[in-house]
Amino acid sequence: MTRQQTIETFLEALSSRQPVPGGGGASAFAGALGTALGLMVGNLTVGKKKYAAVEADVSHMMERLEGLQREMVALIDEDARVFAPLAAAYGLPAGTQEERAHKDRVMEENLLHASLVPLKIMELAVEVLGILEELEEKGSVMAVSDVGVAVQFARTALTGAVMNVYINTKSMKDRQKAEEINQRAEAAVTEGIPLAERIYGRVTERLK
Amino acid sequence: MTRQQTIETFLEALSSRQPVPGGGGASAFAGALGTALGLMVGNLTVGKKKYAAVEADVSHMMERLEGLQREMVALIDEDARVFAPLAAAYGLPAGTQEERAHKDRVMEENLLHASLVPLKIMELAVEVLGILEELEEKGSVMAVSDVGVAVQFARTALTGAVMNVYINTKSMKDRQKAEEINQRAEAAVTEGIPLAERIYGRVTERLK
Repeated sequence: MTRQQTIETFLEALSSRQPVPGGGGASAFAGALGTALGLMVGNLTVGKKKYAAVEADVSHMMERLEGLQREMVALIDEDARVFAPLAAAYGLPAGTQEERAHKDRVMEENLLHASLVPLKIMELAVEVLGILEELEEKGSVMAVSDVGVAVQFARTALTGAVMNVYINTKSMKDRQKAEEINQRAEAAVTEGIPLAERIYGRVTERLK
Repeated sequence: MTRQQTIETFLEALSSRQPVPGGGGASAFAGALGTALGLMVGNLTVGKKKYAAVEADVSHMMERLEGLQREMVALIDEDARVFAPLAAAYGLPAGTQEERAHKDRVMEENLLHASLVPLKIMELAVEVLGILEELEEKGSVMAVSDVGVAVQFARTALTGAVMNVYINTKSMKDRQKAEEINQRAEAAVTEGIPLAERIYGRVTERLK
């Protein structure tokens, strides 16, 4: 479980030639770090007289961020879990027609799983960005720069995970399914990147 | 020491109302994660016959990434270390003229330290991006998407840290020094963002 690893061990595992954790797991971790910074902003807002009017809203955002953080951390492990059977499938024999048909079937199934995990990371990252947009408006002015950093982490979850979607859908034989997944990934990018740029732009303006 | 914390503890500390670790430390951590993914690409390249011609170059890039990772991890702690005296300075009395003069001097000194740490993170992030550009050309084709994710982390180190530079230089009395630091920060952004976009664009093209 990633949650119990030290920072040092995680950096070593990420640096190593072992395929997981790799770019997919790192993208989910970026998402988790983005939620953590959002929670920090929330924690610096609730309980302050100045922000009493938005306390209920901010508390609700924090609950959602906590849930999203749990999902993102679980997706680091999930990304590693779906990789092993895919790597094994690449190594299956394909000498006879039966072997080839079996290998194709196993490959297809595992490519699907391996593309759905980063797609999930992307869709959650867009949710995180939606919350951060509201937090930029309602959160403590003292922590506005932390909203900006949170946005950059959520953006990395999105732009990192999308490549791991495409790598896997690229090899899928079921092109209709592959295109359906690619379109969901593109929709997340099309929504998320301008949203991230908009929030970050607002934060930058406020720091001037 | 951040290095020895578990992922769970680090996420909790980042989420809490404690000011450190905050956006500055998280930006340095993003830089460290970017170097780790770069090292993974290097580790998947060296020792392979196919990449024998670039092995010396890639090994040299890896040495540089290891050094940059150590610096980035140290900067997470350094960012926390410079915050405490700054927070204390804000609380100094300013009733008499002598007290005010003393407070101004202490504030100025600590604002300078607190802006130089994120500036350092930014300048190192641009170095990481420079190495990733070469790694995109020479590294294993199997790990090209990991170069793309690494780029996004280095970009977050840059775009996250810049806000922590501006927050601190904004309150500095020595405007010449403040402008000098702001200009170095702007130079890092002006160099780093297009570089990040260029490498990421190339990776995306190669995944199509």
